[in-house]
Amino acid sequence: MKELISKLKNNIDLSPEAEEYLHSISSNREVSKGEVLIREGQTVRYTYFVTDGCLRSFCIDKNGRQHTLQFAIKEWWISDFIAIYNNELATLTVESITDSKVIEFKAMDLANIFTKYSEFEAFQRGNLERHVVSLQKRILNQLQLTAAERYDLFLQQYPDIESYTPNYHIASYLGITQQSLSRIRKEKANA
Amino acid sequence: MKELISKLKNNIDLSPEAEEYLHSISSNREVSKGEVLIREGQTVRYTYFVTDGCLRSFCIDKNGRQHTLQFAIKEWWISDFIAIYNNELATLTVESITDSKVIEFKAMDLANIFTKYSEFEAFQRGNLERHVVSLQKRILNQLQLTAAERYDLFLQQYPDIESYTPNYHIASYLGITQQSLSRIRKEKANA
Repeated sequence: MKELISKLKNNIDLSPEAEEYLHSISSNREVSKGEVLIREGQTVRYTYFVTDGCLRSFCIDKNGRQHTLQFAIKEWWISDFIAIYNNELATLTVESITDSKVIEFKAMDLANIFTKYSEFEAFQRGNLERHVVSLQKRILNQLQLTAAERYDLFLQQYPDIESYTPNYHIASYLGITQQSLSRIRKEKANA
Repeated sequence: MKELISKLKNNIDLSPEAEEYLHSISSNREVSKGEVLIREGQTVRYTYFVTDGCLRSFCIDKNGRQHTLQFAIKEWWISDFIAIYNNELATLTVESITDSKVIEFKAMDLANIFTKYSEFEAFQRGNLERHVVSLQKRILNQLQLTAAERYDLFLQQYPDIESYTPNYHIASYLGITQQSLSRIRKEKANA
């Protein structure tokens, strides 16, 4: 929690009351590899800030195939924001793909922070704007880049992810088959 | 502008000063079919609120192919938000695909509204949250749905767009070739 508080203090004028509030709505949690924190169809009660390890959010299509929306490494937030922002049940599943450490925030209390402590508004606006940019870029990349180019960008964003993530997670993020991913890797190795 | 002001008043407690500010940073503009409002490589000075017609934003890849990020119909906003939020030159082009009417806002002055009139913060947070949701859903749909399923969803979102948009715009939004789009349409017509 210390790291998150000091990160916040770099960006906003955090009052002692707001800091106390953050402590009151959160708890440190260790999660094991494979543990599911949010399950499709359930109410989303928590938002997670990753302090160690890696989590992933994904949906499962009607044929049982998984499609990865996000990987969250150290200092990233993860939850089912579609469910939280739309006030719906989860359509995503969030699981830990390594042994991880997270700060677990009550999602509803976190949403109330903006009315309680308005200093968070401008900060959150910046966060959401950056999120919009990264999602728009991902859509444009999906439209215009080859699978091999998207794989290169992915490795730039998550440099050592291949050491702890199975191939099918990465393929399911890039929107390609595991066979295509293997072929791309072979071509890179031989290039 | 009246429509936009009344829409805002449904959502926020708009002070006369804030309303006056909105008028001072905007102007009504009629744009012709094919007119380019933002061009890749240039500084993005304006954000547009569509009051009639349809605009589109797209990027151009290294082979000269266009890829459509967004169509904006009545009551939608459009600009190059990647450029605005990252303070970069435009990577997108915004053009009007019909004769249209827009309200043109100075982008920098619009960004300053949140510090001048804090009542816009919570409203904008809601807008950005909904934008994140729609972009995440588009990514998930791109990963998990067939092209025909994505085309059906597209027509639900933009019911009469086919009457004024060339096929290659729609294909370039769905990430498919024009030939695939023609095939999907034929199969729907024969179904």
